[in-house]
Amino acid sequence: MSYELYYWPTIQGRGEFVRLALEEAGAAYADVAREKGEGKGLPALMALMKDAARPPFAPPFLKHGEQIVGQTSAILAWLGDRHGLAPDNDTDRLWVEQIQLTLADLVTEAHDSHHPVGLSLYYKDQKPEAARRSEEFRDKRIPKFLGWCETILDRNPKGPAWLVGDRLTYADLSLFQVVEGLRYAFPKATERALKACPKVVALHEAVAPRPRIAAYLASDRRIPFNEDGIFRRYAELDG
Amino acid sequence: MSYELYYWPTIQGRGEFVRLALEEAGAAYADVAREKGEGKGLPALMALMKDAARPPFAPPFLKHGEQIVGQTSAILAWLGDRHGLAPDNDTDRLWVEQIQLTLADLVTEAHDSHHPVGLSLYYKDQKPEAARRSEEFRDKRIPKFLGWCETILDRNPKGPAWLVGDRLTYADLSLFQVVEGLRYAFPKATERALKACPKVVALHEAVAPRPRIAAYLASDRRIPFNEDGIFRRYAELDG
Repeated sequence: MSYELYYWPTIQGRGEFVRLALEEAGAAYADVAREKGEGKGLPALMALMKDAARPPFAPPFLKHGEQIVGQTSAILAWLGDRHGLAPDNDTDRLWVEQIQLTLADLVTEAHDSHHPVGLSLYYKDQKPEAARRSEEFRDKRIPKFLGWCETILDRNPKGPAWLVGDRLTYADLSLFQVVEGLRYAFPKATERALKACPKVVALHEAVAPRPRIAAYLASDRRIPFNEDGIFRRYAELDG
Repeated sequence: MSYELYYWPTIQGRGEFVRLALEEAGAAYADVAREKGEGKGLPALMALMKDAARPPFAPPFLKHGEQIVGQTSAILAWLGDRHGLAPDNDTDRLWVEQIQLTLADLVTEAHDSHHPVGLSLYYKDQKPEAARRSEEFRDKRIPKFLGWCETILDRNPKGPAWLVGDRLTYADLSLFQVVEGLRYAFPKATERALKACPKVVALHEAVAPRPRIAAYLASDRRIPFNEDGIFRRYAELDG
């Protein structure tokens, strides 16, 4: 049985963390809102959010048979267990969950850098506020989050290749995507921060060429970054 | 073996969700940063964040023997399993996790209502931005989040008393705290929203008199709401 991913059809956004896990797992899935036809497209997404017995609050959510799972971090923990992208033991699995939740916090802050005062407003309607918020994000938060990841890699008793243990987990895929997104949105600030994070850079470089990830990134399943997503490039916010 | 909770000593904040679960469970715990003496207080919190083999990114975190768990939602899932505050079956447990994660998103938005452009700035330095952000939070987000909880209660096949199944879980405690916090911070907007959410109100009323919760709320272990926490009462932001 294949998965059905429900997410906004024109952006990477939070859905991308789920896509990367599904791709690395080699799992069959439909990106439902990007497809056309009956029971597909955005109407299918909206219908499930409205009518499901257990309605997700927001995309992304993943459907497998009758099971619907929402919230990126919960989806990843669930997929991780099903597809060998999480550790076998409870202690390590819990640590991977904490890392994922922290990366999710970073993603929220990346979003708020261009939408600090109104989710329902356009960026152009909150540019001065975005400039204030981005200054702190760029100068304090990006270095703090990436530095924390570097420390985790430093202290991994199994070596600094992966965040937890000696093989890739979904948290590594998420860190890969965070680096991708930050480099897109804040190229100058991110390169500055990454100078102090060689192990994070190495992890990113180790994920990109993995066969399934490389094939995915080269495919049209990977939506390019754009200024409707979470990671947006506005030159005036970088520096 | 008792738990050690590490959280900022003068606010309810995110730590309060953990405190409520520990209290309802009747679990022995020390609120370490609120205690004095060697190995206690804020220095103990800062030391663990800096030096732990697996350092939490931010408080709250919970220590039990050698295990340290950070991130509120991960802590609650862990405690829920250990103390009967989570469902027995995987499907329901996963649903409780999604609800908790969504309530955590609401908590972040509540925080950002008074700190939209700078975590490291004071409220007085971002009052105009806070006014803009709060307008949307008050008029759109509070009704949306509470309305979603009402829908969940409506659709619970075991009845509308609790969010999932027919007994209390940690998500119910969190919803109780969210209602407490919103009523404190945005009394007018919250009462307006709660008019459409009678089941949420009833759940709040069912949690408060539970013996361990009532004893906790009446004790000095419960820190009063204040304007250093996440839920802050600034009259100019309500309306």
